[in-house]
Amino acid sequence: MNPIELTNRQKQIIELVKKHEPITSEHIAEQLNMTRAALRPDLTILTMSGFLEARPKVGYLYSGQSVNNMISDFIKNLKVENIKSSPVIVSEDTTVYDAIVTLFLEDVGTIYIHSGGLLTGVASRKDFLKIALGKTDIHKVPVGIIMTRMPNIAYVKDDDSAYDAAAKIILHEVDSVPVVEQVCAENGKTGYKITGKVSKTNITRLFFDLCNDKLGGL
Amino acid sequence: MNPIELTNRQKQIIELVKKHEPITSEHIAEQLNMTRAALRPDLTILTMSGFLEARPKVGYLYSGQSVNNMISDFIKNLKVENIKSSPVIVSEDTTVYDAIVTLFLEDVGTIYIHSGGLLTGVASRKDFLKIALGKTDIHKVPVGIIMTRMPNIAYVKDDDSAYDAAAKIILHEVDSVPVVEQVCAENGKTGYKITGKVSKTNITRLFFDLCNDKLGGL
Repeated sequence: MNPIELTNRQKQIIELVKKHEPITSEHIAEQLNMTRAALRPDLTILTMSGFLEARPKVGYLYSGQSVNNMISDFIKNLKVENIKSSPVIVSEDTTVYDAIVTLFLEDVGTIYIHSGGLLTGVASRKDFLKIALGKTDIHKVPVGIIMTRMPNIAYVKDDDSAYDAAAKIILHEVDSVPVVEQVCAENGKTGYKITGKVSKTNITRLFFDLCNDKLGGL
Repeated sequence: MNPIELTNRQKQIIELVKKHEPITSEHIAEQLNMTRAALRPDLTILTMSGFLEARPKVGYLYSGQSVNNMISDFIKNLKVENIKSSPVIVSEDTTVYDAIVTLFLEDVGTIYIHSGGLLTGVASRKDFLKIALGKTDIHKVPVGIIMTRMPNIAYVKDDDSAYDAAAKIILHEVDSVPVVEQVCAENGKTGYKITGKVSKTNITRLFFDLCNDKLGGL
C-alpha cells in the first residue's frame, strides 16, 4: 500500500493540530488565514485517511497513525470462509423459468449452475430480466443456454480474504462470486465444487457488523 | 458498543502473547497443553476482534486495543455525501418497459420514481423480473402502478453515515437507499428531493477502497 502523499498545507494542518489539539476548524482557519470553506477539503482528507480525528463539539485531534492501514490489515485478514453464505445451485438442464422461480423462492440475486456437481455457470437477476423481456420460451430453454459459462466466471476460495472477494465483485462488475474448492473430476480434469457464495449483500452485512461488535462471534 | 466478553481461556491466551510476543500458535498450544486445532477458534476470535495481531511467519502480537472500535468509529464518521452515487430517476407515468430499458442503459439495480420532482417510489430488478413474468402488459402499465410507494421507502440524508446507509440496506433488505433532501412542496406539504443513491455496490466499493488508500481522495 502506498502512503498518502500530503500537500504542504495538509502537513501544516497536522502540525497545528498536534500542537493545539483539540482545535476547532475555525481556529485552524484563523491560524492559516483561510476561510473554513476553503479548509474543508483538506480536513476531510486528513480525517478520512486517519491522520486527524474529528470529535463533534470538541474539535480535531491528532490520531498519530493511519487508521486506514489498520482497517486495511483487518479486512485483509478476514477470510472468505468466515463470511460466505449458502449458494443456490441448479443443474444446467433446469428451465430458465424454474431457475427464476428458485431465485425468488430462495430470495437470492444470483444462481450458480452445475453439471456433474461441478461449477459450469452463473445467472443473475439481470440475465433473467433480459431473457424474460425477449422472445425466448423460458419454459423450454434450459438455463445452461443463457448462463455465463466457465472459464468466464470470477470465483474465490475459502482461504482468500474478504478483500479479495470485494475486489473481484467490483472489478468484474458482478453481484456475487461463488466460493469453490478445486477437485479432480472423473475424467481426470480439474473442476470446481461450489461450497458457498460471497455477494454484495455479504460485504454490506460485514460492513454493518463491523460497527456492531458481531465479529467476535466469527 | 458493548465490549467483547472474553472467556477465561481467551484471557489466558492474551496474557501469554503479552508476555512472549511474538509467539507462534504452536508455542501457545504447548503452554496451554492444547492442540493447535483446538486453539484455532480462540485465536481467530482474538485476531478478528483486534486483541491480537497475526503476522505470517512471525507469530502473534498483542495489539493493545480493539481494532473493531477504531473501524467502527471510522465507518460512523464517513458521510453519505462522500460515498453516494448518481441516482437514476424516471417519472411515475413512464411505462414499465421504458423503466426497464433505462435500468439496462444506466446499468443500475434500482430506479427511483418521482412525481413533481419529489420521490414517490422505488422499483428494483427483482420487482421488474416479477412483473415481466406475469400477465401485465409492460408496454402499457406505468411504473407508478408497480413501484414500492412512499412512505414504505427507506432513505438516508447527506449527513447520515455510511454505517446508517448499510444498516438500512441490511435491515430493510433492499439493494439501495435513495439519498434525499427534505423540501417544502407547492402544496405546503413536506417532500423529498432525490440527490443520490447508496447501494450495496457503493458499500462494497467503499470496503474495497478502504484497502486501497483511495479514501484520501474523498
